[in-house]
Amino acid sequence: MNYKMVGHFISWILLVEAVFLLPGIALSVYCHDGGALHAFLITTAVALLLSGILGMLCRGAKSGFYAVEGLCSVGLGWIVMGLVGCLPFFLSGQIPHFIDAFFEIVSGFTTTGASIVPEVERLTKPILYWRSFSHWIGGMGVLVFLLAIVPGGSSGFTMHLMRAESPGPNVGKLVPKMRQTAMILYLMYVLLTVLDFIFLVAGKMPVFDAVCTAFGTAGTGGFGVKNDSIAGYSPYLQNVCTVFMLLFGVNFSCYYILLLRHFKDVFRDEELRLYFGVAAASTLLIAWNVRGFYATVGETFRHAAFQVASIMTTTGFATTDFDLWPSFSKTILLVLMVIGACAGSTGGGIKCARVLLLFKSLRRNNRRVMKPNKVQVVRINGQVVDEQIIDNTNSYLAAYVVITVVSFILISLDGFSTGTNISAVLACFNNIGPGLEQVGPTCNFSAYGSFSKIVLIFDMLAGRLEIFPMLVLFSRGTWVRR
Amino acid sequence: MNYKMVGHFISWILLVEAVFLLPGIALSVYCHDGGALHAFLITTAVALLLSGILGMLCRGAKSGFYAVEGLCSVGLGWIVMGLVGCLPFFLSGQIPHFIDAFFEIVSGFTTTGASIVPEVERLTKPILYWRSFSHWIGGMGVLVFLLAIVPGGSSGFTMHLMRAESPGPNVGKLVPKMRQTAMILYLMYVLLTVLDFIFLVAGKMPVFDAVCTAFGTAGTGGFGVKNDSIAGYSPYLQNVCTVFMLLFGVNFSCYYILLLRHFKDVFRDEELRLYFGVAAASTLLIAWNVRGFYATVGETFRHAAFQVASIMTTTGFATTDFDLWPSFSKTILLVLMVIGACAGSTGGGIKCARVLLLFKSLRRNNRRVMKPNKVQVVRINGQVVDEQIIDNTNSYLAAYVVITVVSFILISLDGFSTGTNISAVLACFNNIGPGLEQVGPTCNFSAYGSFSKIVLIFDMLAGRLEIFPMLVLFSRGTWVRR
Repeated sequence: MNYKMVGHFISWILLVEAVFLLPGIALSVYCHDGGALHAFLITTAVALLLSGILGMLCRGAKSGFYAVEGLCSVGLGWIVMGLVGCLPFFLSGQIPHFIDAFFEIVSGFTTTGASIVPEVERLTKPILYWRSFSHWIGGMGVLVFLLAIVPGGSSGFTMHLMRAESPGPNVGKLVPKMRQTAMILYLMYVLLTVLDFIFLVAGKMPVFDAVCTAFGTAGTGGFGVKNDSIAGYSPYLQNVCTVFMLLFGVNFSCYYILLLRHFKDVFRDEELRLYFGVAAASTLLIAWNVRGFYATVGETFRHAAFQVASIMTTTGFATTDFDLWPSFSKTILLVLMVIGACAGSTGGGIKCARVLLLFKSLRRNNRRVMKPNKVQVVRINGQVVDEQIIDNTNSYLAAYVVITVVSFILISLDGFSTGTNISAVLACFNNIGPGLEQVGPTCNFSAYGSFSKIVLIFDMLAGRLEIFPMLVLFSRGTWVRR
Repeated sequence: MNYKMVGHFISWILLVEAVFLLPGIALSVYCHDGGALHAFLITTAVALLLSGILGMLCRGAKSGFYAVEGLCSVGLGWIVMGLVGCLPFFLSGQIPHFIDAFFEIVSGFTTTGASIVPEVERLTKPILYWRSFSHWIGGMGVLVFLLAIVPGGSSGFTMHLMRAESPGPNVGKLVPKMRQTAMILYLMYVLLTVLDFIFLVAGKMPVFDAVCTAFGTAGTGGFGVKNDSIAGYSPYLQNVCTVFMLLFGVNFSCYYILLLRHFKDVFRDEELRLYFGVAAASTLLIAWNVRGFYATVGETFRHAAFQVASIMTTTGFATTDFDLWPSFSKTILLVLMVIGACAGSTGGGIKCARVLLLFKSLRRNNRRVMKPNKVQVVRINGQVVDEQIIDNTNSYLAAYVVITVVSFILISLDGFSTGTNISAVLACFNNIGPGLEQVGPTCNFSAYGSFSKIVLIFDMLAGRLEIFPMLVLFSRGTWVRR
């Protein structure tokens, strides 16, 4: 591995993180919150210092950049970002254990939203802000941000980085230049977030709450600023969240195509149809299943739609304790956790595009068994899918199953119920947040031991970075100097 | 589809089933059990009549036999075999509901061992015999039996049939002729069963119990003749069961190779090593986890080894209520359910050979990500694995996951807990028998509604026949006449 190159990019990531910490300092001053100010100042200093040292050590890195370096930069970069980013929680004393603080910030950056804080309303505003802002940073990805602002860099390298950090089976460029693609993505991300904020404030949500909720929605993260998540806000505000959660779960390239006025291409997109189809069907089934739980049909649909949008886009907000729903509804939610949002969105899960590919390749295999002598291809949106992508998708699913099973075994050492353990792994690995039973929407992850928390932190990172950047770190071949 | 050909073979299957029903008639006479005798006589008559009618209707079937006909014959054949085979239970009134009787016999033929009978000791001996004998018939497969005894048949067709009914990613012939392969397999099957019986009788197990237990062990089925399964027998008898369950989970071709004295080939077999390695590791981990549950170290290891062997080979006998074990042990058992036994054995699950292939192809993919320009192959036992087999294995896993998820959603309509539903689907789909919680070793499946039972019947058949013979029945293209 080309260590210098990897070090060079981690130095850049730390610099960006230091910049992202600045609003926290400003807010601490504004709120007269001495403890948080102290913590943010030290963290920023640490980030700058580490960035400087790494930058010095790795000066003059040769630009020989291979896939493995790209994957490693992303995997290690996110771990370092978490280790530094958790310092405000830890140093301010608001999350007294380091492993808890690390869990919380990784949950933030990976847009999981799983929390170990029993009562979020006890946290001070600057800390709440950093918690929610981490969702927004992690949603689109810090390296995509880096690509958007840092000029230069060979195109091969940027493609490797982008591929490692962006979700989905197939990363396309919107425009020929990678840097412009990254800029367009970030611009749309900012615009949609601002729009969400405006709709929330128009519904009389306090400005601070609106900022944090917009961050949590945009990153499909799920950290809220209230103990009861979104349940205390008005039906209008809940519906705004439902709509924007769904919007942030859409492949961002669809918005770009919409801007270019190619409406037909968007409406014909098979992944988008699957995404909205599954969301609509799940809402109907759950609304039917929980009839009688709420006073009116409208309220039933509002809660059903909100929870479906929240779980499917892997946000993790809640307006009701869905752990009390009948098991059919809970099972649907568990399955939605796994399916997840669209590729190229800020959401997690396996992604609708992969589910589509799996079903199509399954049907192809069925046809192949029946007519062994005919060449059978898989088409999506009318185009033949490259066999390599189908291979990779199958392999992704295999890795997904293996990681789920191993994590499930490891955290079961803590002795919780099967339902709790399964949903905890799925909620972390798919970057959702709350699970069922003892990690349900009214509970949190604090009861798990440190070892289980580390396993779940790995799952969150593997889920957000789509497995391979994390697997590469555990491969012997990676650590050979060349 | 060539309907006549399929009908022709189902007629043969019914004839074989009628023959298999004869010992039941004899036993009914011996036990002076009028109800059972009546039921067995009618059932045999029905089987012979249907076989005759089908044989007449489908006379002169052309031998044009394609993959789809092979799959269909197996899928439909097994369903018909179940529909006729459940009649002794139903007509004798010992299982009063038809759907329950059907569930019970499919559970028998597929060697699942999941029961809807609350107290098996209330059943009469001829019925208990038929219940256990169904495991033995289903273990090696009724079509393999057919191949062994019926002369003729084009080799292409027999290969299709054998492939559809035999477990594992890759069906090999032991000797050049398919018929001789089938005969050798059955001979070894009979010999091992007899050996098991002798060891059981030597340990003073009553002869009737020993016959039924040997059938249940040989087919890796799990129906017992006692309410407490194997728990009431002596430690020696429990250990005999442990050893024979493990032996019946081994690929039968290994025994053939042993007979040929190629010892090295057997000991070097990677699947066999994985199988025994996982069994040993699981036993150690569980024994450590349940220390303190039993009086002595010996007892702890006996129960741990028995339960591991029973679940991993998908037999489903029990000597202790493992649902009371800590969740780490239960989680290991859940995972063993999925892994299953060796390919080419009578056990179920994904099979060790497929797990091996999945891990190897995953490692290959990891290498491919790191060195995209190097051709990477997968080797098992030193030989390069055909890419088509890797493709099929991935596709099998995808189908496996899809069926598990869909079944999980459907049976959750009955409102049981997540742990119950997950383990019920896994226990049926992998042909194990007991699951956890409300379907644990001291409980049974009778509480599920008829719809869920049908879903679980489908899962048992799909699990035993390795999915595709059942999927083909639901494919539109299958039902086109040609």
